[in-house]
Amino acid sequence: MSDVRLVREQGVTAPGGFRAAGIAAGIKVSGNPDLALVFNEGPDYAAAGVFTSNQVKAAPVQWSRQVLKAGRLRAVILNSGGANACTGPGGFQDTHTTAEAVAAALSEWGTETGAAEVAVCSTGLIGDRLPMDKLLAGVTDVVQAMAGGLVGGDEAARAIMTTDTVPKQVALHHKGDWTVGGMAKGAGMLAPSLATMLVVLTTDAKVDAAALDVALRRATAVTFDRLDIDGSCSTNDTVLLLSSGASEITPSQDELDAAVLTVCDDLCAQLQADAEGVTKRVSITVSGAGTDADALIAARIVARDSLVKTALFGSDPNWGRVLAAVGMVPFTIDPDRITVSFNGSPVFSGGTPMPGAREVDLSGADIHVTVELNLGSGQAMVRTTDLSHAYVEENSAYSS
Amino acid sequence: MSDVRLVREQGVTAPGGFRAAGIAAGIKVSGNPDLALVFNEGPDYAAAGVFTSNQVKAAPVQWSRQVLKAGRLRAVILNSGGANACTGPGGFQDTHTTAEAVAAALSEWGTETGAAEVAVCSTGLIGDRLPMDKLLAGVTDVVQAMAGGLVGGDEAARAIMTTDTVPKQVALHHKGDWTVGGMAKGAGMLAPSLATMLVVLTTDAKVDAAALDVALRRATAVTFDRLDIDGSCSTNDTVLLLSSGASEITPSQDELDAAVLTVCDDLCAQLQADAEGVTKRVSITVSGAGTDADALIAARIVARDSLVKTALFGSDPNWGRVLAAVGMVPFTIDPDRITVSFNGSPVFSGGTPMPGAREVDLSGADIHVTVELNLGSGQAMVRTTDLSHAYVEENSAYSS
Repeated sequence: MSDVRLVREQGVTAPGGFRAAGIAAGIKVSGNPDLALVFNEGPDYAAAGVFTSNQVKAAPVQWSRQVLKAGRLRAVILNSGGANACTGPGGFQDTHTTAEAVAAALSEWGTETGAAEVAVCSTGLIGDRLPMDKLLAGVTDVVQAMAGGLVGGDEAARAIMTTDTVPKQVALHHKGDWTVGGMAKGAGMLAPSLATMLVVLTTDAKVDAAALDVALRRATAVTFDRLDIDGSCSTNDTVLLLSSGASEITPSQDELDAAVLTVCDDLCAQLQADAEGVTKRVSITVSGAGTDADALIAARIVARDSLVKTALFGSDPNWGRVLAAVGMVPFTIDPDRITVSFNGSPVFSGGTPMPGAREVDLSGADIHVTVELNLGSGQAMVRTTDLSHAYVEENSAYSS
Repeated sequence: MSDVRLVREQGVTAPGGFRAAGIAAGIKVSGNPDLALVFNEGPDYAAAGVFTSNQVKAAPVQWSRQVLKAGRLRAVILNSGGANACTGPGGFQDTHTTAEAVAAALSEWGTETGAAEVAVCSTGLIGDRLPMDKLLAGVTDVVQAMAGGLVGGDEAARAIMTTDTVPKQVALHHKGDWTVGGMAKGAGMLAPSLATMLVVLTTDAKVDAAALDVALRRATAVTFDRLDIDGSCSTNDTVLLLSSGASEITPSQDELDAAVLTVCDDLCAQLQADAEGVTKRVSITVSGAGTDADALIAARIVARDSLVKTALFGSDPNWGRVLAAVGMVPFTIDPDRITVSFNGSPVFSGGTPMPGAREVDLSGADIHVTVELNLGSGQAMVRTTDLSHAYVEENSAYSS
C-alpha cells in the first residue's frame, strides 16, 4: 500500500464528515473525562458493528445491536465509569433514555436525529446502575462541546479510557483521497471481562452498510479477535464502523478491507502495548496445523496459559511449558514432530531440547513464540502479554 | 461411614504389606530429599493407574502406563528435581534403566522383581535429562533405606515435594479391618504444568486390579479431576493405587469406592490448601445446568477466569466477573434466570444485583461461589484458588 499514510496523532475525526467531543460528566468518581460523542455529519450514515460473543450482554450492547440492524447511525455516545451490565430492565431503560437524550440534543442543535440512530457504549464496573442525572446533564454538555466547532477526536479518545494509561487512536489516509480513522480503549482481546474493549472507526469513503460490515468482520477476525490478554470475554465489547461518504470516493471492497484491517491492526498493537500490567508484548504463532482453525485453537491455548505467561514475565525461556500447553489441544498432535522457537531460536525439535535452549535471551519487551506442528499448512497468530504482578495488583483492587 | 477413621499422620505405609523410603540422592541442587520408593510386600500385587490427558507425556508416564497394562506392580520409584519430559528416546531409556535398577536392587535384597513390575514417576522442570549417575546410586540407597526396616511413609511423602510447602498424606482405617493410605505432591488439578501432581495410594484390601481401576477412576473423576488451580495440564500427572491383600479382607466395590474417594478427597483438599501462591481456598459450584457435564464446564470456566481469581485475591465480591465468565459457556443460558451467591449470600438474581451485593465479606480464607442456572438439575463443584502475587512470583522465577 504505497501512498498510504498512517498517523497516530489523529483518530475518529480524521475522515471528513465527523466531529467528536469528550468531557468530564462526573460519572467517574475521579473527575476524569468519562463521556464521549462521535457524530456523523454525513451526507451518508451507513454503519456496521460487531459485538461481544458473551451471552451476558450489557444493556448498551443489546441496544446497539438492535439499532445497527438498520445499518445506519448518526452518532455514538460512549461513557466510561460504569458498564451498565447485569442491571436488569432498569439498566436497559437507562441506555434507551441516553440515546433519546442524545437524539433530542442533536435535533435541538439542528440535526434531526432519532434515538434509533444513536449507538450507546459503556465501560466500567459490571452491576451498578449509571448515575443518570449526571449522564443526562453530560449529554447536553458533550453535544454543546461538539457543536462548539472543536474537532474533538483527542478528547473523545481520552474520555473512554478506564485502566488505559494512554489514549489510542490512528488514521489511515489513502492517497489523500479518502481516510479511515479510529479510537480504542481497553486492555484485552475482543474481550476482557474488566477492561471492555470499545472501538469506534470512521471513514469518509462512500460505501454502504453491507460493504462496511464485510470490511469490519474481515478485519476484526484477524486483529481484535486474536488479541487475547487473559482469555476473558467482556459483557460490553463493541466495535463500530461509520461512514460519512464525505470524500465522495467509493473504494473497491479490497481497498476498503485493507484500510480497515490496517487501522484495526494498529489499534490492536496499541491495546496490546497498554494491556493491564503488561511488561512483555508476546506473539504466539502456530504453523503446520491441519487447518488455520486448529492453529488458532493451539495459539489461544498457549496464549492463555498462566504458566507460560508468568515464565515470560520472568524472561525465562521455559519452553517446556509451551509444549505442555500445546499438548492440551483437542486434536491429535505428534510431540516428536514439533519445533518450538523463541525469538527465532529453535529450543525444542525432533523430540529433544536444542543446545542453548535455556540461554535464549528473552529480556527484551517483545517475545515471539513459534510452534511448528508439522502436520499440515494451517497457521495463525495470537497476540498476548505476560502475566505480571501489576496485572494481579490492578485486577485485585478494581471494584473496591 | 461410621467406624471409619481418617488419620493425616499416616500415608502409604498405613496399610499392611507396604514399606517406603525417601532419601536425598542429589538430584535437587538444594540437597533436599528427592527420591522415594513405595514397595508392596504382598501377598498380592494388583495395581491401577490414571495418567495425564496431555498429549505431551513425560517418559515416566509412557513407561508406567505401559507396565500398568498388566495390572500388577511391586514398587513405585518417584523422583523430584526433574520431570524427564520432552527428553526424547534418551529420556525414555533413562526411565527404563531406572526401573531395571530398582528391580535389580529389590531382587538382590531377596524379592525377585522384574522391571515391568516397577512404575516410575518424575516431577520437576520439563526438558532436562536426569543426572542418572546420582539417580542410580540413589536407587541402591533408597532400597537399602527401605530394607533397613523403617516404615518410611513420611520420608517418601517428603521426597516427592517440589514447590509444596508441606508433605501430604492421609490414611483411612475401615473398622480396623482394612486400610487405604496415600501421599500426594503438587499444586494443581489433575494437572498443573509446573507442579506435576503425583499421588500414590495403597491398600491392604484383597481386591483385584479391575476393582482397583473402577474405584480409582470413580474417585479421581470427582476429586483430582475437579481441582483446577490454573487450568494447565501437566506432562507427568500420575495417580497409582496398589493393593497388597495383606488384610485378607475383600470389601464390596461400594466400600472400596467410598474409601478411595474419601482418601482422594482429603488429599485433594491438602493439595488445594498448599497450591502455589494460594491465599484463598475457593469452591465454585454450578447447579441447575441441563446436565452434570454442562455444570462442570461452567464451573471450570469460572474457576479458570483470571479476573475472578484476582478479585477473590482482593477479597472483592466482584460478582460481575463471575457472570461475565458464565456468559462464555458453550451452551445456551438465560442471564435473567441466574442466581449468583458468595458464601451463601445471593448477590445477583432475576437479572439484577441484590441489595448489599458489594458488601459481602470475603476476607476469610474460604470462599464459596455458587451459580444457579435454573435450566435443569445438572450440578458440579470445582475447587480452585485465588490468583495472587505469590503465584506470579513463584512461577516467573522457577527454571532460571
